[in-house]
Amino acid sequence: MKLEKQFIEDHNKKLHNSHQSAFNFLAERLTQEGHDVERILNKIAALQIAIPSWALGNGGTRFGRFSGGGEPRNLEEKISDVGLLHAMNRSSGAISLHIPWDIPKDAKAIKALAAEHDIAFDAVNSNTFQDQPDQALSYKYGSLSHSDKSIRKQAVDHNIEVIRHGEQLGSKALTVWLADGTCFPGQQNFRKAFQRTLESLKEIYTALPNDWQMFIEYKPYEPYFYSTVIQDWGTSHLLATKLGKKAYCLVDLGHHLPNTNIEQIVATLMMEGKLGGFHFNDSKYGDDDLTVGSIKPYQLFLIFNELVYGMEDPASINPSPAWMIDASHNVKDPLEDLLQSVEAIKLAYTQALLVNKEELEAARENNDATQAQEILQHAYRTDVRPLIAEARRRIGAALQPITFFRNLNVRKQLIQERGLKTVSTGL
Amino acid sequence: MKLEKQFIEDHNKKLHNSHQSAFNFLAERLTQEGHDVERILNKIAALQIAIPSWALGNGGTRFGRFSGGGEPRNLEEKISDVGLLHAMNRSSGAISLHIPWDIPKDAKAIKALAAEHDIAFDAVNSNTFQDQPDQALSYKYGSLSHSDKSIRKQAVDHNIEVIRHGEQLGSKALTVWLADGTCFPGQQNFRKAFQRTLESLKEIYTALPNDWQMFIEYKPYEPYFYSTVIQDWGTSHLLATKLGKKAYCLVDLGHHLPNTNIEQIVATLMMEGKLGGFHFNDSKYGDDDLTVGSIKPYQLFLIFNELVYGMEDPASINPSPAWMIDASHNVKDPLEDLLQSVEAIKLAYTQALLVNKEELEAARENNDATQAQEILQHAYRTDVRPLIAEARRRIGAALQPITFFRNLNVRKQLIQERGLKTVSTGL
Amino acid sequence: MKLEKQFIEDHNKKLHNSHQSAFNFLAERLTQEGHDVERILNKIAALQIAIPSWALGNGGTRFGRFSGGGEPRNLEEKISDVGLLHAMNRSSGAISLHIPWDIPKDAKAIKALAAEHDIAFDAVNSNTFQDQPDQALSYKYGSLSHSDKSIRKQAVDHNIEVIRHGEQLGSKALTVWLADGTCFPGQQNFRKAFQRTLESLKEIYTALPNDWQMFIEYKPYEPYFYSTVIQDWGTSHLLATKLGKKAYCLVDLGHHLPNTNIEQIVATLMMEGKLGGFHFNDSKYGDDDLTVGSIKPYQLFLIFNELVYGMEDPASINPSPAWMIDASHNVKDPLEDLLQSVEAIKLAYTQALLVNKEELEAARENNDATQAQEILQHAYRTDVRPLIAEARRRIGAALQPITFFRNLNVRKQLIQERGLKTVSTGL
Amino acid sequence: MKLEKQFIEDHNKKLHNSHQSAFNFLAERLTQEGHDVERILNKIAALQIAIPSWALGNGGTRFGRFSGGGEPRNLEEKISDVGLLHAMNRSSGAISLHIPWDIPKDAKAIKALAAEHDIAFDAVNSNTFQDQPDQALSYKYGSLSHSDKSIRKQAVDHNIEVIRHGEQLGSKALTVWLADGTCFPGQQNFRKAFQRTLESLKEIYTALPNDWQMFIEYKPYEPYFYSTVIQDWGTSHLLATKLGKKAYCLVDLGHHLPNTNIEQIVATLMMEGKLGGFHFNDSKYGDDDLTVGSIKPYQLFLIFNELVYGMEDPASINPSPAWMIDASHNVKDPLEDLLQSVEAIKLAYTQALLVNKEELEAARENNDATQAQEILQHAYRTDVRPLIAEARRRIGAALQPITFFRNLNVRKQLIQERGLKTVSTGL
Repeated sequence: MKLEKQFIEDHNKKLHNSHQSAFNFLAERLTQEGHDVERILNKIAALQIAIPSWALGNGGTRFGRFSGGGEPRNLEEKISDVGLLHAMNRSSGAISLHIPWDIPKDAKAIKALAAEHDIAFDAVNSNTFQDQPDQALSYKYGSLSHSDKSIRKQAVDHNIEVIRHGEQLGSKALTVWLADGTCFPGQQNFRKAFQRTLESLKEIYTALPNDWQMFIEYKPYEPYFYSTVIQDWGTSHLLATKLGKKAYCLVDLGHHLPNTNIEQIVATLMMEGKLGGFHFNDSKYGDDDLTVGSIKPYQLFLIFNELVYGMEDPASINPSPAWMIDASHNVKDPLEDLLQSVEAIKLAYTQALLVNKEELEAARENNDATQAQEILQHAYRTDVRPLIAEARRRIGAALQPITFFRNLNVRKQLIQERGLKTVSTGL
Repeated sequence: MKLEKQFIEDHNKKLHNSHQSAFNFLAERLTQEGHDVERILNKIAALQIAIPSWALGNGGTRFGRFSGGGEPRNLEEKISDVGLLHAMNRSSGAISLHIPWDIPKDAKAIKALAAEHDIAFDAVNSNTFQDQPDQALSYKYGSLSHSDKSIRKQAVDHNIEVIRHGEQLGSKALTVWLADGTCFPGQQNFRKAFQRTLESLKEIYTALPNDWQMFIEYKPYEPYFYSTVIQDWGTSHLLATKLGKKAYCLVDLGHHLPNTNIEQIVATLMMEGKLGGFHFNDSKYGDDDLTVGSIKPYQLFLIFNELVYGMEDPASINPSPAWMIDASHNVKDPLEDLLQSVEAIKLAYTQALLVNKEELEAARENNDATQAQEILQHAYRTDVRPLIAEARRRIGAALQPITFFRNLNVRKQLIQERGLKTVSTGL
Repeated sequence: MKLEKQFIEDHNKKLHNSHQSAFNFLAERLTQEGHDVERILNKIAALQIAIPSWALGNGGTRFGRFSGGGEPRNLEEKISDVGLLHAMNRSSGAISLHIPWDIPKDAKAIKALAAEHDIAFDAVNSNTFQDQPDQALSYKYGSLSHSDKSIRKQAVDHNIEVIRHGEQLGSKALTVWLADGTCFPGQQNFRKAFQRTLESLKEIYTALPNDWQMFIEYKPYEPYFYSTVIQDWGTSHLLATKLGKKAYCLVDLGHHLPNTNIEQIVATLMMEGKLGGFHFNDSKYGDDDLTVGSIKPYQLFLIFNELVYGMEDPASINPSPAWMIDASHNVKDPLEDLLQSVEAIKLAYTQALLVNKEELEAARENNDATQAQEILQHAYRTDVRPLIAEARRRIGAALQPITFFRNLNVRKQLIQERGLKTVSTGL
Repeated sequence: MKLEKQFIEDHNKKLHNSHQSAFNFLAERLTQEGHDVERILNKIAALQIAIPSWALGNGGTRFGRFSGGGEPRNLEEKISDVGLLHAMNRSSGAISLHIPWDIPKDAKAIKALAAEHDIAFDAVNSNTFQDQPDQALSYKYGSLSHSDKSIRKQAVDHNIEVIRHGEQLGSKALTVWLADGTCFPGQQNFRKAFQRTLESLKEIYTALPNDWQMFIEYKPYEPYFYSTVIQDWGTSHLLATKLGKKAYCLVDLGHHLPNTNIEQIVATLMMEGKLGGFHFNDSKYGDDDLTVGSIKPYQLFLIFNELVYGMEDPASINPSPAWMIDASHNVKDPLEDLLQSVEAIKLAYTQALLVNKEELEAARENNDATQAQEILQHAYRTDVRPLIAEARRRIGAALQPITFFRNLNVRKQLIQERGLKTVSTGL
């Protein structure tokens, strides 16, 4: 299914007057406050969030999975779904593949298909947390950290294979989420597991093209419930530092212990020039993988406040991070969920752009906590939806993507094309 | 110090045009969406949040306390400070006293002083978590739950004395925060501690005037760090049920374990007709007692969504809950902090009033999680500050209380009156 | 596979001398301390922990599942596995079935098979957290709490069917774990969900035989990640109270928020006569379902301290709770894991039996926290393994079950019988 | 008050037979298992845990403090109290001072007094989390990280002064617990705060004698409740690495978010050669500062398992860490509490020494989680109290220190000497 531009134009036309008056009012206010509205609109329009290939179908839990309908059955349909999203919001112009689920049979054709949808290939992801049917050795007790050298080698080789697939498609980064860990005290020698992991990562690093980056994800628990080899940002940073300048840390919002101050971690990593990538989602309890901004939108804003600070700092030594959503959709339509997530990211980003940095730094110098809070909350409480809609309108996206998606009965059409009981490859 | 009305009028005049255009624009939008703006304004104007007498000075931690300046030195000055707040925002028209810190020497004079400031007396609070200089027996190992009957009696008598003080001033409720608990496994027999507490509360309940309510607070830990006699809402509810229809549960936002779904507790208690009172604050880790809305404003909105649902339910069996701030100000000016807290409460309340309940219930019936989220977020993302300002303006309060407070150099004047190194009685 | 008694006798003979000297030494010490060792041995021998039918194969997570080998392929083989456990430790004399996974085709034959292994049928468990292939309506958005009456009816009918199956086998209790909940704020009306659940449970309760109990489990999250209809013990207790005297709360150790004082909940529920059942496991982060006692053995002891207190209280109004393990085995052999779990339970139980209750109550009356801790730790630090081994020996079980299991190559034999890639029905 | 050796000899004589038979039985068992009992006894006897000067009186919370009696009123009495502890257990042969509370008026005399008690001076602690009466500038908004250079200088100078005091007494390390942090989002620029802290620490580091170490403590929250400049081990490690080889991380058990795997952090830091010091205590919720081993004794054992592994590793690059208790005594006699804490540390240490490392590593290589757990639990479940008592006996300490302390009415004598309402200097 492909969206005709006319549909979007029609949709936007109907909402035009109402949107225009809201936008004009807001733009005037912001201009009075000293903001350069055009500059902000350009920044919003430029923000692109990669969509992971595994987030296009319904997810599940260990207790079961309730499928939706019309889920993509193969890589082509996944690209088509991201294409749909991108056509609606013009902010989802990249897909992040998971190997082996998404191995392209014909890389050239896949590249051409993606180009048709104006979709780039973001970081590629390896998978050593599951066994594949044709796999020689099992990852039950680990992969890059395994006590058995032959299993480590298999995992290293798989990662290198993932890089090769990524090269063919134009990716520029490898994301390593190492699930390796243990369920019981004593099960593993922490120090040896770290050293083996470092050694394995070094081999992968060596195979990394010069213009690539390696992102090292951390996570405190799950799928193992006592320890994880890369349990926190400190461990990820230690590995990235030992590996070299192409290695970076990747922050997934759901991969933290209760009450962690994530925004401070983000600030520290950017200060050290080691924040490589970001996985957006939201959570109340653990790695819940809920819609971005659905639980703690203010925390998301605070994180973006650090990201914007880091990105706009002319002295910054941190490269521009790779943005990706990493969520699971158990009770919502995956495409609607992703539209909501992208919207929440853009809201937080825009609010962060509105923070008056000079005044904020002045309040900080004076230790004026009241004023610092007023400044942040002023930006956060501003209803910036008209700005985002305007940015969308200007680049040919829908003013209200979810309304558009529903009015057009997109899901119904996908079910007709693909069937009701499809299961997306991968999770 | 007392504020002249003229100051507020001058302040409002300067901001009038800007405010009026923002309000008009928002009012028109909301009217288009089907809201009765006048009804909402009246509700906002009617909301009154009690200020606890102990929140008018700087708080501290076990590691120390950094005083501010110009803190109220006695009950009269505390009432004066609440009067200042109320003059600025017309939403802080009640004070909640803590006995023995705030025992009025001349109840009649205190009542007259409060009336002058248009301040009512909210729930009175007993204190059995500290020893007072003239106290016969120590609460080191508990009070209402103590193993020693004479100590329980002392604590019961104190609570009854608090009721008597409250009666003289016109209070209609007693709040029992029972700090009793233990620091070590084995220290206490849980069941006996519960039974003793129930017995003590029954004696206090018997002394309660017929038109009074008793609020039973719960808290999982602190100042004891292994167990608390009333550790959660379930225990508070059990006690309130056993005591009778004048007994209610009190929810303090900071008194929950990490990740607790507080809004669901609120809904359950209101469903059972047992939500008596509410202590507002915010927190990231424990009972941090931070400014309301400074950490998790969306959670506050979700809680208000349940409160509004319960209050507007014509079939509700729950009385109107008592609202109070319970925060501690370690790094901010207490009065500024309280202004920010009241503002955050009114924001959340107003946003909750904007939730389209019919549409929300329809989405829920259809299990349309996407749409339910859209409805809530639409209300939450609306910038309702002009509504709150307008409600304030109409009842003679300042359009921007904090700006007003700063421009008038209120704190400087208080320091001149009271001195720099005052310490507020109580904590 | 069935164990010959001779094997156990041979195993015990080899260890006899070493065991006897350790037991004698300990028994003498305990006798000196005033304990009635024979009484304790009888109590240990009498303790029976039910094994859930779904815990006999390898579990997994949403990220995948690594199968072991020789897993039971049907109900008969599950009973046989519990029979094996029971033959080794004589403490696992009951199985808890999960319907529809374990529907017996021939109830009589199944009963006979169980009797052969000396296995009784513990509480039966319903399943409305998954859709079954032949099911008319989906539980994706809930079951007993669903907004759609026909889905609630289907779930009610299923629970009644479960009771009927249980009756045929001699079960005396129904465990309702209601997974129902939501992933997003706003998705559900909390109060309506509670009321619908109550109504559904009432219908099931009505179908409950007079000599049956209904156990209502609570859980804060998972498989839904924003709210759960029965989120905590308070909610479970509210439901059980409204339902009647056959309804009880069920405590699963993993179903609590971080840092919850579970032992106090246990004490409160027993005080109210409402603790019906117990699911044992251990966890570090969430509902990790790890081997009992593998993470927090002291907490387990403290919980047993309350259980023993409640069970030995002559004035107790609480019936004897139903004990069951509810764990998942992702990296261990399920049978070994269960042997370790039963052992940990018996250790904690025995240690709790050794607590000197008179001295403890005396220390508590004096608020002597040091002494109370000394008393508990004295019991906990005692190495009671010889007592448990002796109790086992006397009823014909193996002195060291895991050593026995390994020496006999039980798993290898099961793999030969059943194959390497079996998957246990259910999870 | 000073203990006569005769008292201890009398005490030990009474318990001699019972102890000897328990020790002999255990020693024989351990010898059979291949342990070198004499070597273990020597290690236990050699373990010394420093006592902080502020832990000798009753602590409190922000809600109040209930004093005990006979608390030390000055440095001399603090040393005398540690001397008492050391006389009883011969394992508390060092005191850790807190400046400015413990500034010696006559360093020589204090050294002589300590020598009399056989007490050494452990790491000295600076205090920039409180304002002192004679202090020029306030630490309300930070110290080493403060935005104002003159305040940073004051804090740096204070730390250098602390080093100078330590040099006079023979200390060899400075512990920096930097409380600096914020209560509200936006209050501080995270990056600037880190850079200022690094700069301040560099100045202190420069003043550090060559044979000294600097320990950098981390803590996620309290006394500030939104952020802490050194929030976790990763930040502490980053600072220590940037500072140089005399700088190390310090782990305080209570300074972690819920569910943190602390033992893995310990392993990582020792692997990197950066674990400098350890503060022992226990906690259920936050930095509860409870008696060591009173809440999670198994976690303590797992931590010691890593410590022993690191200390016994011949290739280790980590220096021997400095051990200290850091607890607060709100409901127990401080000296009894400290005796219990030291005992718990020695238990965990001894159990860790009993772990069969060869078998454990073999099980790990085989990913035999069941066996690894059996090995750890075998050591943990062994009742090692007779070993510890024997080690104590041999070096002239009391077999049962708490019984000894109580029988001798030590506290009563201290109250007679010092009075009932003393308050220890410091907290």
